[in-house]
Amino acid sequence: MRDRRERCEGGGRDGFGGTHGPQDTDGPRAVHPPRRPSALLLRGVTSTALFTDRYELTMLSAALRDGTADRSCAFEVFSRRLPGGRRYGVVAGTGRFLEALTRFRFTDDEMASVAEFLTDETLDWLRTYRFSGDVDGYPEGELYFPGSPILSVRGTFAECVILETLVLSIFNHDSAVASAAARMVSASDGRPLIEMGSRRAHEEAAVAASRAAYIAGFSATSNLEATRRHGIPGAGTSAHAFTLLHTDADGPDEAAAFRAQVDALGVGTTLLVDTYDITAGVETAVAVAGPELGGVRIDSGDLGVLARQVRAQLDDLGAPTTRIVVSGDLDEYAIASLRAEPVDVYGVGTSVVTGSGAPTAGMVYKLVEVDGRPVAKRSAHKESRGGRKRAVRLARRTGTVVEELVTAADAPLPSTDPYDAREVAVPLVRGGDVVATATVADARDLVAAGLTSLPWEGLGLSRGDAAIPTVFS
Amino acid sequence: MRDRRERCEGGGRDGFGGTHGPQDTDGPRAVHPPRRPSALLLRGVTSTALFTDRYELTMLSAALRDGTADRSCAFEVFSRRLPGGRRYGVVAGTGRFLEALTRFRFTDDEMASVAEFLTDETLDWLRTYRFSGDVDGYPEGELYFPGSPILSVRGTFAECVILETLVLSIFNHDSAVASAAARMVSASDGRPLIEMGSRRAHEEAAVAASRAAYIAGFSATSNLEATRRHGIPGAGTSAHAFTLLHTDADGPDEAAAFRAQVDALGVGTTLLVDTYDITAGVETAVAVAGPELGGVRIDSGDLGVLARQVRAQLDDLGAPTTRIVVSGDLDEYAIASLRAEPVDVYGVGTSVVTGSGAPTAGMVYKLVEVDGRPVAKRSAHKESRGGRKRAVRLARRTGTVVEELVTAADAPLPSTDPYDAREVAVPLVRGGDVVATATVADARDLVAAGLTSLPWEGLGLSRGDAAIPTVFS
Repeated sequence: MRDRRERCEGGGRDGFGGTHGPQDTDGPRAVHPPRRPSALLLRGVTSTALFTDRYELTMLSAALRDGTADRSCAFEVFSRRLPGGRRYGVVAGTGRFLEALTRFRFTDDEMASVAEFLTDETLDWLRTYRFSGDVDGYPEGELYFPGSPILSVRGTFAECVILETLVLSIFNHDSAVASAAARMVSASDGRPLIEMGSRRAHEEAAVAASRAAYIAGFSATSNLEATRRHGIPGAGTSAHAFTLLHTDADGPDEAAAFRAQVDALGVGTTLLVDTYDITAGVETAVAVAGPELGGVRIDSGDLGVLARQVRAQLDDLGAPTTRIVVSGDLDEYAIASLRAEPVDVYGVGTSVVTGSGAPTAGMVYKLVEVDGRPVAKRSAHKESRGGRKRAVRLARRTGTVVEELVTAADAPLPSTDPYDAREVAVPLVRGGDVVATATVADARDLVAAGLTSLPWEGLGLSRGDAAIPTVFS
Repeated sequence: MRDRRERCEGGGRDGFGGTHGPQDTDGPRAVHPPRRPSALLLRGVTSTALFTDRYELTMLSAALRDGTADRSCAFEVFSRRLPGGRRYGVVAGTGRFLEALTRFRFTDDEMASVAEFLTDETLDWLRTYRFSGDVDGYPEGELYFPGSPILSVRGTFAECVILETLVLSIFNHDSAVASAAARMVSASDGRPLIEMGSRRAHEEAAVAASRAAYIAGFSATSNLEATRRHGIPGAGTSAHAFTLLHTDADGPDEAAAFRAQVDALGVGTTLLVDTYDITAGVETAVAVAGPELGGVRIDSGDLGVLARQVRAQLDDLGAPTTRIVVSGDLDEYAIASLRAEPVDVYGVGTSVVTGSGAPTAGMVYKLVEVDGRPVAKRSAHKESRGGRKRAVRLARRTGTVVEELVTAADAPLPSTDPYDAREVAVPLVRGGDVVATATVADARDLVAAGLTSLPWEGLGLSRGDAAIPTVFS
């Protein structure tokens, strides 16, 4: 068992992948940059400017009219709480946001659509819109906690307010997926996870979900567009439909299906053995592919019991290196419950792309400063803290984090002795230009490092407090 | 109260909208077709072919190699159960799927991305791919129940199998949103609902969610791209940031913010009154705008209590026609709990775009027939029924539905006396060409008619059985 697992971790094929091409290896750094990044502009929406709520433009219109549009403002993104008693969140979406920001333009097509409810003054302003302010934020892949100021957007009211929806859509979605995925990764105890939930999510959200899951530590994705666009390693071999296709006048012929798959994809492929009878399926699989068969996949039933039975059967059949891939409604709890079983690879669908019960991260985009003055909503509920903030993460000398310290951005840092203090945010945009250069691989490294830095109780799956307190000083 | 509500239903401004342009009226049929439908091809992803799981192409490759790729197949889409004890689901996504199908093409860009794991034979096949088969399905907006065969895709194995992920991504997402939204619509008791959840969803999913919510009966959306792309009426005036912006050396100046908004958007606008103190906010709002003020919005606190207080205050201030818009974490239960309160318009965010606890509809795409023979997975769990099916909905003469009768597609219909029987599915694609012509407005009408056809208990929000049984004969 141990041998097989280490082989997986060592960058071997993922047990669920095809057999051709470099994408079938899933070492943790196997990120393939898109060959033609500029093609994004052709493939994606050309302008991102209408991923915007109408009220941002009506506010703009009113602010231009009364002369407040140019006031110097700071907006901050944060989440008041973590969903479902979770212990930490994972910031994801930064790279996608920065790319989307460069395409936030009101071309003739966008102008035509908003012209009917805006003044000419507003339309003229939009026509030449380029964000010219500054953005700082937690680097993608950084952990966050309740109240962590994960993004700071500064500029005129006008240029910042119209980014609200785009910012939140991207961070709320991607962080929700990455936050759930990271829990699955830590529950898997080092065994690879394949993201295969595209069919359970909007077709574009699925691509972003693949990216977020990979950042959180998943090994590969089923989604072809995620491989093309973001370089995420691909995986996948066959579904029940392929076995069922091999049905003729004499009835089902599982062996013919397996033979066809092995002929096309090689003996290293993973055969799906639960279409009819799992025991018979495993026997047929080894008979067809031989003991070098890469893997078998079980997609239904009691996965723990079945994994044990199939492991014993494979060993008896002289196929001790054939890996066992399990899938079928797995979430972090099911993954954890299979830790003691001879499972080599997890395939995870619905739960990861839907944030495992928390499909949105609950982040908000709040105006915190106007012309240097702190501002905040003051009525009951949903209270916010005014003023620009910065976060410092305190850690023991061992690296274990102990506190998220949030202070006013311009206040002197209080003594943090005896802890090490690290400023969490980094510059992302300066004067409208993207200055951050972090890649998906960098973000993935950061999640891995972040999980290592948590106190033990921070990795618990049960409901509880945040792994470290957020202290506002 | 009654007067105000009827004014809303009669197509007046929605109380949350701006003041310019036809999109501020939200009569139920006010669907504005996109001015340039062909622009979709420029704005959206040019090809949809990589919204696909890798295993569909590896199966294709294996099937081409062993000669089974051309077998005549039928795939069906259905959901085994309704989430969370719901009584019905709403089919949505049909229009988006048919549009996406026409763009499912492997251009050079897609070919380059998949070339590394596919054979030349497979690549040649993909290069000329056009779906040439037939599709039937429940019309968009039709209600569905557990096991309802909502889509039937027929053609060769090869041409059908590679559509699995695209089909499911679209139907699972859009139906999840429409199904949740329809419950909110029936809970609202005829008062208008505005979809304003874009910030809680992936930026593209948000556009599809707006469309699905509108189909389910919502009146308007905050999402500008949904207005452009799908013609959904737009709504939105201002956020707390606009009030906070009006802060100077003397402190907050809510009156200045209201004045700026009224100057720009007219007295028919909706002012957000809960930034500081609601009672003071309402007084200021009427003082600034006069008794003709269109509406006030309350976004926090106990909305029922506040709505009553604010209604009394507005009436006292001589503003009996000023409407009350409430928002802030509303779901179908919160909406229902406000039925007795003087609420005129609901703004709904997170819960509608995330399917109110069920962010995916759980639909599957199953191979049910090969060369005229029924096929089905047979092992434990997830059992499917083989063979092509058709659904007939039985109703009393009064129109109230009583049963979803599902039979083999080619079997004679059993007697359904004394009920009226209606074939549910309609032709969508014939020989690869889209033949369906239903619009978003048609789908919206169908949801409204469907909700009327349910037995009373079918509209219950509590957990329960499906509104009508699905009977397989």
